[in-house]
Amino acid sequence: KGREAFREPRIAYWNVPLMRDEKIVERPADQHTLTKRYTEEAVKFIRANKEKPFFLYLAHTMVHVPLFASKDFAGKSPRGPYGDAIEEVDWSVGEVLQAIRAAGIDKTTWVTFTSDNGPWLIFREQGGSAGPLREGKGSTWEGGMREPGVMWWPGTIPAGAVNHDIACTMDLFVTAAKLAGAKVPADRPIDGYDLSATMTGKGPGPRDVMFYYRDTKLYAVRQGPWKAHFVTRAGYGSAKPEAHDPPLVFHLGHDPGEQYDQSKQRPDVVARLTKLAAEHRAGMKPGEPQLDARLPKK
Amino acid sequence: KGREAFREPRIAYWNVPLMRDEKIVERPADQHTLTKRYTEEAVKFIRANKEKPFFLYLAHTMVHVPLFASKDFAGKSPRGPYGDAIEEVDWSVGEVLQAIRAAGIDKTTWVTFTSDNGPWLIFREQGGSAGPLREGKGSTWEGGMREPGVMWWPGTIPAGAVNHDIACTMDLFVTAAKLAGAKVPADRPIDGYDLSATMTGKGPGPRDVMFYYRDTKLYAVRQGPWKAHFVTRAGYGSAKPEAHDPPLVFHLGHDPGEQYDQSKQRPDVVARLTKLAAEHRAGMKPGEPQLDARLPKK
Repeated sequence: KGREAFREPRIAYWNVPLMRDEKIVERPADQHTLTKRYTEEAVKFIRANKEKPFFLYLAHTMVHVPLFASKDFAGKSPRGPYGDAIEEVDWSVGEVLQAIRAAGIDKTTWVTFTSDNGPWLIFREQGGSAGPLREGKGSTWEGGMREPGVMWWPGTIPAGAVNHDIACTMDLFVTAAKLAGAKVPADRPIDGYDLSATMTGKGPGPRDVMFYYRDTKLYAVRQGPWKAHFVTRAGYGSAKPEAHDPPLVFHLGHDPGEQYDQSKQRPDVVARLTKLAAEHRAGMKPGEPQLDARLPKK
Repeated sequence: KGREAFREPRIAYWNVPLMRDEKIVERPADQHTLTKRYTEEAVKFIRANKEKPFFLYLAHTMVHVPLFASKDFAGKSPRGPYGDAIEEVDWSVGEVLQAIRAAGIDKTTWVTFTSDNGPWLIFREQGGSAGPLREGKGSTWEGGMREPGVMWWPGTIPAGAVNHDIACTMDLFVTAAKLAGAKVPADRPIDGYDLSATMTGKGPGPRDVMFYYRDTKLYAVRQGPWKAHFVTRAGYGSAKPEAHDPPLVFHLGHDPGEQYDQSKQRPDVVARLTKLAAEHRAGMKPGEPQLDARLPKK
């Protein structure tokens, strides 16, 4: 069916399994009700585990293409199928927060909502939008890498506060360990930082630097407001990687859309970020792919 | 000084007069303190007039280039001079609302905050940003014409509500007349609508259609979520007008960034909006320029 399977999706086009643990329980999965069913499962889990510490990872299938929504949401949003799916996920978040409140554990539960990448632009209006940010999924422009991050923890995280500190999903592991009183492994470098001071408004953000990878290659480095692109490439499609020497340099505070290269005006920034990238590369020792080890031997 | 007078503005580069009524009171005007002084004047006006109905039109000079901010704001924002000026205007709005509250008239005062056009893109990061919208000031793309509109009226306009109905600044006149119990002139066509039902959450928006002009020429028409561009042209610069037949057609709900022309898929929309544009043109009778009449005779 090709692109039509995305543009006008039907369950039959997508013979995907729904699994519980390692067992297939439905195939093809009825994707219209996935958001609803994941939510019910999450709420049940919270109710069952409210007496003890727990970790719940609710990774919605939506709003990835192909887009589906339940009867309550399909066709309701002015933003089309993408908006319908967004609104159902929004409903889901509300249900989860309500379950936490109803369990009486909202003062002791840290909730984080975020996403793994920007819009998949080849799917056009069904692929999402990066708003003012440049490019999308797959690229190391901000439109591919920068995501909303929303945190909720009544009494601990100030309500309605906006925080511009840099954070990344790798930081969630270290932060969760710290909050739970656990130690992070000391026998290897850990790429995450403890966000607890910045997220509670009690201190500055610990992360000043971001390294932007595409596959195993370092494409860009950010330090504070400055970002240097050593290589750029459009997210998807046939565009080839393009190397930049000197790197393209953008001030993400003044120019969040990465429109106005400042490499000529700011050789000091070029020099500083180039050195940072070189030091980072020198310290990297590629690990063995961990998923490959779990594949059946051929 | 050319572009530098914008990029690194100084008061001396801009020999602009500050006027009270028709008298020049300062030249060159110290633009650093304009936002602060306009605000103080507005607050004084509110205090002096709180006992009777009044109309206050506070048209800030900022955040138009050249950008200036007072000592309290200059250099403080992560967004640079544009952000500094925005933050000072934001402060100003807070002062005005506080003056209204302090005067005890917040339950009987309608406040509207909006802007006249999108970013002036040739001034790059100092010209503003249209976020996800296309193009900027001067053009009839949404980035040139669509503006934030924020209304405040405690007890009458629901706090925190988001309204997607179409409205335009021409509607403010009719709405204000209606709210004040005045009649709008009946001897001529009036282009505005009464927004009072939609802004108070009591009824639907009255405006289904928008006509987009550049100078005296109709470039585009919107009806509901659909917009047809008969002519497009970049906001500023040497780009020439480009005529489209059939018009480019975008669904502003699904595709607010006007990226995905639907004219081939939706000939029905093309036909409907083309007819609407023709009817509108047929009903237009250009008036005499009213400002010209006030110019000294040569």
